[in-house]
Amino acid sequence: MRTDNRRNNELRRTVITPHFLKHAEGSVLIEVGDTKVVCSASIEDKVPPFLRGTGKGWITAEYSMIPRATEQRTVRESSKGKISGRTMEIQRLIGRSLRSVVNLDLIGERTIWIDCDVIQADGGTRTAAITGSYVALVYAIIHLHNQQPFDVFPVTDFLAATSVGILKSKDMVLDLNYEEDSNAQVDMNIVMTGNGHFVEVQGTGEEATFTHEELLEMLALAKEGIQQLITIQKETLGDIAEKILQNKQ
Amino acid sequence: MRTDNRRNNELRRTVITPHFLKHAEGSVLIEVGDTKVVCSASIEDKVPPFLRGTGKGWITAEYSMIPRATEQRTVRESSKGKISGRTMEIQRLIGRSLRSVVNLDLIGERTIWIDCDVIQADGGTRTAAITGSYVALVYAIIHLHNQQPFDVFPVTDFLAATSVGILKSKDMVLDLNYEEDSNAQVDMNIVMTGNGHFVEVQGTGEEATFTHEELLEMLALAKEGIQQLITIQKETLGDIAEKILQNKQ
Amino acid sequence: MRTDNRRNNELRRTVITPHFLKHAEGSVLIEVGDTKVVCSASIEDKVPPFLRGTGKGWITAEYSMIPRATEQRTVRESSKGKISGRTMEIQRLIGRSLRSVVNLDLIGERTIWIDCDVIQADGGTRTAAITGSYVALVYAIIHLHNQQPFDVFPVTDFLAATSVGILKSKDMVLDLNYEEDSNAQVDMNIVMTGNGHFVEVQGTGEEATFTHEELLEMLALAKEGIQQLITIQKETLGDIAEKILQNKQ
Amino acid sequence: MRTDNRRNNELRRTVITPHFLKHAEGSVLIEVGDTKVVCSASIEDKVPPFLRGTGKGWITAEYSMIPRATEQRTVRESSKGKISGRTMEIQRLIGRSLRSVVNLDLIGERTIWIDCDVIQADGGTRTAAITGSYVALVYAIIHLHNQQPFDVFPVTDFLAATSVGILKSKDMVLDLNYEEDSNAQVDMNIVMTGNGHFVEVQGTGEEATFTHEELLEMLALAKEGIQQLITIQKETLGDIAEKILQNKQ
Amino acid sequence: MRTDNRRNNELRRTVITPHFLKHAEGSVLIEVGDTKVVCSASIEDKVPPFLRGTGKGWITAEYSMIPRATEQRTVRESSKGKISGRTMEIQRLIGRSLRSVVNLDLIGERTIWIDCDVIQADGGTRTAAITGSYVALVYAIIHLHNQQPFDVFPVTDFLAATSVGILKSKDMVLDLNYEEDSNAQVDMNIVMTGNGHFVEVQGTGEEATFTHEELLEMLALAKEGIQQLITIQKETLGDIAEKILQNKQ
Amino acid sequence: MRTDNRRNNELRRTVITPHFLKHAEGSVLIEVGDTKVVCSASIEDKVPPFLRGTGKGWITAEYSMIPRATEQRTVRESSKGKISGRTMEIQRLIGRSLRSVVNLDLIGERTIWIDCDVIQADGGTRTAAITGSYVALVYAIIHLHNQQPFDVFPVTDFLAATSVGILKSKDMVLDLNYEEDSNAQVDMNIVMTGNGHFVEVQGTGEEATFTHEELLEMLALAKEGIQQLITIQKETLGDIAEKILQNKQ
Repeated sequence: MRTDNRRNNELRRTVITPHFLKHAEGSVLIEVGDTKVVCSASIEDKVPPFLRGTGKGWITAEYSMIPRATEQRTVRESSKGKISGRTMEIQRLIGRSLRSVVNLDLIGERTIWIDCDVIQADGGTRTAAITGSYVALVYAIIHLHNQQPFDVFPVTDFLAATSVGILKSKDMVLDLNYEEDSNAQVDMNIVMTGNGHFVEVQGTGEEATFTHEELLEMLALAKEGIQQLITIQKETLGDIAEKILQNKQ
Repeated sequence: MRTDNRRNNELRRTVITPHFLKHAEGSVLIEVGDTKVVCSASIEDKVPPFLRGTGKGWITAEYSMIPRATEQRTVRESSKGKISGRTMEIQRLIGRSLRSVVNLDLIGERTIWIDCDVIQADGGTRTAAITGSYVALVYAIIHLHNQQPFDVFPVTDFLAATSVGILKSKDMVLDLNYEEDSNAQVDMNIVMTGNGHFVEVQGTGEEATFTHEELLEMLALAKEGIQQLITIQKETLGDIAEKILQNKQ
Repeated sequence: MRTDNRRNNELRRTVITPHFLKHAEGSVLIEVGDTKVVCSASIEDKVPPFLRGTGKGWITAEYSMIPRATEQRTVRESSKGKISGRTMEIQRLIGRSLRSVVNLDLIGERTIWIDCDVIQADGGTRTAAITGSYVALVYAIIHLHNQQPFDVFPVTDFLAATSVGILKSKDMVLDLNYEEDSNAQVDMNIVMTGNGHFVEVQGTGEEATFTHEELLEMLALAKEGIQQLITIQKETLGDIAEKILQNKQ
Repeated sequence: MRTDNRRNNELRRTVITPHFLKHAEGSVLIEVGDTKVVCSASIEDKVPPFLRGTGKGWITAEYSMIPRATEQRTVRESSKGKISGRTMEIQRLIGRSLRSVVNLDLIGERTIWIDCDVIQADGGTRTAAITGSYVALVYAIIHLHNQQPFDVFPVTDFLAATSVGILKSKDMVLDLNYEEDSNAQVDMNIVMTGNGHFVEVQGTGEEATFTHEELLEMLALAKEGIQQLITIQKETLGDIAEKILQNKQ
Repeated sequence: MRTDNRRNNELRRTVITPHFLKHAEGSVLIEVGDTKVVCSASIEDKVPPFLRGTGKGWITAEYSMIPRATEQRTVRESSKGKISGRTMEIQRLIGRSLRSVVNLDLIGERTIWIDCDVIQADGGTRTAAITGSYVALVYAIIHLHNQQPFDVFPVTDFLAATSVGILKSKDMVLDLNYEEDSNAQVDMNIVMTGNGHFVEVQGTGEEATFTHEELLEMLALAKEGIQQLITIQKETLGDIAEKILQNKQ
Repeated sequence: MRTDNRRNNELRRTVITPHFLKHAEGSVLIEVGDTKVVCSASIEDKVPPFLRGTGKGWITAEYSMIPRATEQRTVRESSKGKISGRTMEIQRLIGRSLRSVVNLDLIGERTIWIDCDVIQADGGTRTAAITGSYVALVYAIIHLHNQQPFDVFPVTDFLAATSVGILKSKDMVLDLNYEEDSNAQVDMNIVMTGNGHFVEVQGTGEEATFTHEELLEMLALAKEGIQQLITIQKETLGDIAEKILQNKQ
């Protein structure tokens, strides 16, 4: 039994509250256990220099934590005047993951800014950010669709993420909370689409290593969790989910 | 009648949700109309260099908005690598205001970090931040008190803040929302204690001026609003409010 | 009696030396007691992005102290690589104040840069900077006027600033020097126009509070001082003062 | 056939020149095809704050490219005043990988700084940096060993890295050069130890996805390449390799 | 004849006003024609890390221009957040020059901060800064001497600086003003001691070159000018000059 | 005899390896004793703002050291987020020197970026960088010439640099290595053209001074060294040297 009484292959309670922010084109609050992330998608009618004139759009992400999201207060990156390596890695991961399920040619020369602001952190903030901001992104694209309907809906599949890990006890567990994450020997983040394909596989031995067999077991455990997260996304999106399902056929 | 159907001397609906964050020693969510600010108070067992060895404590504040708190997405200050003048002014105002109602000699060589993170902005974020973070601060001091009771409770009075302004229509209004704030000719932020003393009076003619009579009218209007806010603070704090009331006698 | 033998309602000796810098369109040296500030106004033929194409001009201010203006050497902000909150507040205050007495529509798409460099500091540098840079600004607008006369002179009124405060001794004093400023319980900066209207009222209880009656007394004291400062401005400007007086009728 | 006439499972010519720098405790030049990286290991007799007093050591890495390592000149990060997200990711990856094969308790309170400076870039710079800096690190630890012999040699295994990917042509290839990397739909970096365990598995669908079967194939291909790289490391290290092999038994 | 009616070997009118700042241990205003520099010397009772515990002192310099010292307004380095290469070169030059005539062993573990703030610029600001800050430095050392007399006065000689150059007209001129400096093909700054030794010789062909003979002529011209500047320094210092002259014997 | 068995007027062994980098338009590795610098010249088809529309080109230089080029590891300037004064001085010196022997009107509106990256440092890195980057620059201009021949070859003369100094032993030596440089009382860097004209003369008494006679001796010693360096440049350039020699007639 895990410290929060979950089975090894059990996700934490996950709730996605849609339209959490008044101003954003798309937004949600995602809660994965005690981890809470506000995700918003904002549309800007221009693209980075390398895409100007190509007719293609872009999706980029920023990630931050409020200082007291964490057990000990974390110094603001705006006060330090620079963004940490950890933040940069997470931002790049979120942006890359979301771009893999959107046809950027269809959305036109626009940038969709994804903002993931962690209000409370208890492990798994980056995977919660991906799972939540996918839904915010879909709402923002629906916002575009309502202004001028797309012939083909630009979102090609569902997308969610979770973590798996091997604890010092050798237990292999799904969806690690902060305490587990601090004690994991191997830590893996997986991003997957609705049809079960991988978008990102990031496995790290933290001053440790892992075998081929362990890798396979972790991938299977993650897949199981991600399928449940995608079910929650579909329930949140309701009718909109149909547009994405049509694309998958 | 105002755009949101309020009378000129009417506050917006104000709700303070206590203990909003799991990890912080003190925290609230304050909602003033559509303005929502997460306020936390974090205790650190050291003080800035100028207070080391004096036995005296310190209270300092940081303020930030998540990018899509605003109607148009605001670029993160951490991305720009520097903090704007507006943010600095607000941070200094919050810290200074809170320090005026706490006996810093009593709290010992500790810093209380106040973090005000605006989740949604609709005008009056700095005054909401002061009103909310006062409550978060009291909870953090209660946290200290529970560990080792103070002989004299260090909080000397209640403290709340609101805005008043003169619109282009010449209407003088209390607690401006964003639309009103954008159209105000004179904008005033007032911070007051429970016994009706001023802590800060900041009145600004925005490319305009104001007369002595207008100043007096605005002060009276602000006082009325602040008394209501302090009533809400007392209701939120419940029994704890007694400790502060005893100090005031 | 005050430490420098002034009465409580007495300004320090104030001298404005016009045309202090060879290159600037407008410049003065203002001396308020031992406080000395070089103020210059520089005309640039473009405006910030938010005003482009509007035909409207802009006035913005920068403030700095040379390192040994102060009793203890102050580290340069250029060495630290960032501007302090105090500097930002002062810069914003100077710019906002000056904009309140200039019709920005009349000066065309130009920016007037106000630079206030404190050579020697003995309290009241921000109010001296406002009083002095008002004169530098008028000279710069006269420079424009001489190139191509304005139909209506863009400066609508005189403008000056001073401080008032309540010392620990409970004395209420006008135009605080550094020693008084360090000991003040309440500190107030007032910016006023020639016709006696307020532009800025910034009163701060420094870890203290103040009553309504004290506020009224301080405002009256400041008004008295500002009228004397405006008399000095008029003497400095000589004939040019007429242009501004005509606007006021 | 690939553009440089390699078979899909063929590494580029890899040469490790030991003792490339006069001053460093350990250093190599690694050439993987046209990719050339100077790797050095420098010993500093202190550790980061979180390890002080623990008796444990630390290994950290920095990565940079000279501006004209690349086809188009890259702006220096020192000129831009900040380090890119890509650089931070690579630095963290190198440090984490090397720490997984060193017993940090044995090296004492020392930091070993790994510097990877890319002189010429043709794809695979991060994996070349890991493979090369492993050897530089071993030399630096030998340097410590020669000053005062370790009872147990702190390096627990060999470590090397390579990339695999799926090109737009659907070919799955080992050790991608720059041209291939630019055209890859899936890009995977693998770090492995001498005994065939994984340290890092980082697979990314670049605006694409990949299946479970493709993942397995890529892992097998990487394993083959890494074994060859470890053979080259052993040849470079000569007798020193024995110390590591003893640890593995 | 030169544009300002000087002969080629004629210095501009040079005036040194001592004790220009109230707070500094040593200060002057130096005017060289229209170039005006406030120079101050501030004593701090600690030294940089590389001198701690050596008993030796340090002299370091900072240089800045107020924005409207120049014909066109110059953007503040504090606003840009970084110091230009030109400023750094000048700062290093001033510090190095002054250190050459002070016995740092005698002044004890103190840093003397030299601040050179250009109020008005018309060419030759760096050489004026050296000539002026030498005098400010002597005053600061006299300040130390008055607190506790030195057995041997730490200043070993006089020190002054000037510029020489070759104009496009091939005229070789002493003490270039801004207009001449902008048109010079060769520009040379010379720092010399009272006994005629060189401290710095910095000659630069600005997209041009110069011959051995031209170099010799320029050195002779500079020497002549510097001797006059040292005479002015001696007159300013009065009796204090004796202490330095005794050291030179 | 010097520590490395050279005579006082003897250069260190100097080798220039041309075409050291695959991608750059011009590049060399220059080795001066144990000092090794990679120099590259990169052509960009635009110029800085102050030259736009003038038809004139620009040459600018950047200089850096890899962290373990030095005996003790040097912190990266990209990690510190700012460039040191020393680096800025060197960058400006290299750019200025190279511009003195290129007719910038002839190369058109292009910038040639010179990058000097020190791989190993043993004194004299800035002079090695000038001598080496001159050759890289010539190759880059030949690259332009091959695309579209110049009527007049834009390089007007050869250019090389070396150092001379006076040691504490009073020995005057040519081409100081690091150990000598650390012990020099006077340090001089000279940049000269093929026809024996000066481009830069930078002599510095390091907390010391030097006489006119010593200056003349140092210049003569430097000239001797530079002539040998230019001979090595000519041998490296082979036939290309003819183009430059024709310009000199």
